[in-house]
Amino acid sequence: MSVPATVVTPPLVDELDIVIPTIRNLDFLEQWRPFFQPYHLIIVQDGDPSKTIRVPEGFDYELYNRNDINRILGPKSSCISFKDSACRCFGFLVSKKKYIFTIDDDCFVAKDPSGQEINALAQHIHNILTPATPFFFNTLYDPYREGADFVRGYPFSLREGAPTAISHGLWLNIPDYDAPTQLVKPRERNTRYVDAVLTIPKETLFPMCGMNLGFHRELIGPAMYFGLMGDGQPIGRYDDMWAGWCAKVICDHLGLGVKTGLPYIWHSKASNPFVNLKKEYKGIYWQEDIIPFFQNVTLPKECTTPQKCYIELSKLVKEKLGPIDPYFEKLGDAMVTWIDAWNELNPSTDGAATAKVEPS
Amino acid sequence: MSVPATVVTPPLVDELDIVIPTIRNLDFLEQWRPFFQPYHLIIVQDGDPSKTIRVPEGFDYELYNRNDINRILGPKSSCISFKDSACRCFGFLVSKKKYIFTIDDDCFVAKDPSGQEINALAQHIHNILTPATPFFFNTLYDPYREGADFVRGYPFSLREGAPTAISHGLWLNIPDYDAPTQLVKPRERNTRYVDAVLTIPKETLFPMCGMNLGFHRELIGPAMYFGLMGDGQPIGRYDDMWAGWCAKVICDHLGLGVKTGLPYIWHSKASNPFVNLKKEYKGIYWQEDIIPFFQNVTLPKECTTPQKCYIELSKLVKEKLGPIDPYFEKLGDAMVTWIDAWNELNPSTDGAATAKVEPS
Repeated sequence: MSVPATVVTPPLVDELDIVIPTIRNLDFLEQWRPFFQPYHLIIVQDGDPSKTIRVPEGFDYELYNRNDINRILGPKSSCISFKDSACRCFGFLVSKKKYIFTIDDDCFVAKDPSGQEINALAQHIHNILTPATPFFFNTLYDPYREGADFVRGYPFSLREGAPTAISHGLWLNIPDYDAPTQLVKPRERNTRYVDAVLTIPKETLFPMCGMNLGFHRELIGPAMYFGLMGDGQPIGRYDDMWAGWCAKVICDHLGLGVKTGLPYIWHSKASNPFVNLKKEYKGIYWQEDIIPFFQNVTLPKECTTPQKCYIELSKLVKEKLGPIDPYFEKLGDAMVTWIDAWNELNPSTDGAATAKVEPS
Repeated sequence: MSVPATVVTPPLVDELDIVIPTIRNLDFLEQWRPFFQPYHLIIVQDGDPSKTIRVPEGFDYELYNRNDINRILGPKSSCISFKDSACRCFGFLVSKKKYIFTIDDDCFVAKDPSGQEINALAQHIHNILTPATPFFFNTLYDPYREGADFVRGYPFSLREGAPTAISHGLWLNIPDYDAPTQLVKPRERNTRYVDAVLTIPKETLFPMCGMNLGFHRELIGPAMYFGLMGDGQPIGRYDDMWAGWCAKVICDHLGLGVKTGLPYIWHSKASNPFVNLKKEYKGIYWQEDIIPFFQNVTLPKECTTPQKCYIELSKLVKEKLGPIDPYFEKLGDAMVTWIDAWNELNPSTDGAATAKVEPS
């Protein structure tokens, strides 16, 4: 008697979108095919909208270029950056799904120390679907992982954990360094595979990289705005950092967890450090004021949704960072525009009724 | 022509003591001989002082039993626990060195994934001699490690780091679980080698285990009191936890760092979970109040030394935890006695002139 084959449905296949910002043909997807093909892709085309981006056969996708962004958002499109990977957050806005995984098009499948190809998406999903532990540090790392648990001395009342909002993955080969470090260490490669996932504790900030990132769109999506970067703006390469700082203080306020560690992707190519320095240099010194600002932010109790938190944060940004540079006034306004756009395209929080968006 | 062999002096050989609490012959030292033999050992004999503890040939050590503790400390000996590994902190008190490594006698040399024996002491020394990063999280873990650095978005003003006060090592084989977890998961073994050292962020508490622990005695020694446990006390197995919570809030206050992760030791034998449950059960529920207490402790600016911090903490313990149980009144008093003993045996902070102590 033959036994019918069990069809394994990939996890969350109807609840997760993969968002990819790009300016080139997406040949990198070939390597990801076994892992990504069952999922829906949202491609945000940056740069010249008349250019055609080739997507390998067999992928289910929608693609938005600048003309689409302008058409869909109208005057609100001013909050979406141009000529910068910050444009990826437009994909978060138009998604109708509960979860997002976003990846850069120069990121490939990494291998674990046993030589096995790493399904980065599956690890992000696992990270997001298991609780986080932001209130107390567990020395054996993720206590929900097989073969691990909470260690002696971990308070029992905290072992339920907190919902995980963000899963931040890492990179083998080219590490995510700033321009000065790239210049000083041009040959440094990350070869260390650290077999751990851990929760970044409450009230601790971290540098969130957008290259390999999963998040719970319903819980934290409205805080995942990548700011004003690139064309016409005084800085670049701080898009994901900005989103990370905003999202982290909001996660802390709302009692949500942020994990970092596994999965690794293979980051293939270092960007040009000279170009990067030009983009980064204002960020490098502004950051010295931005970090203390975020370390001291407190949000009022009435802020019970990420939208409310984000609007409150936009006011604080204008008030406290505005004196540094007029850019922060503009950024504060853009944060409000972003939430307006979010609410317009996502009118119901349960996702039952959402605005219609026509991809190109 | 023959090249003269280079004599490699083990690091900090004249500045570090290894403290071992024990009730049995120290045959476990045989395995550690290549790593420990150049160092001085302080053995704190727990239990029956008339029993002779055998120490393998060739080790340089001093040994203190209960009679020695009583003789040296007189009435202040009441602060040193009996029939509990908490007695180890007597070794910290009588040491004259700048650094301490303490290890349990059921801990053996572990192997890394390549099969190489791990020199745990060398890794602790490395951890302590390189800065920590308590103010901001670095996603590629220890930025001072070879092949690693600070990632993009890490504020440049924070890259000098903070002095490292504590290096907390981990355990392969038998994980450090509490009695309930031991009972529920009797067969769980830790087989995961996580190749990372990381700083526990400021204002985050962690469960510090005393099994495999290094620290900077000059910076944090006075806060490394292991409390009142064991004989005549209502709890046990919270000695290292207590020291960890006190030391962490004091490190946070003084701007010092605490690292966890590498090195691993091989923990050979699980202790009896039934006996452990009896020792732990009060701690398990008291802890639900103790943790919020430590999470909310703030020390006044005037507390500029670990001693001053610890005295202040003892007052807060009596005031805030005293209402839970009279035990905390007694513990608060013992904390003061401990500092009195510390100051008596360590009258100068620079270590130039210290009280004479005669080992047995």
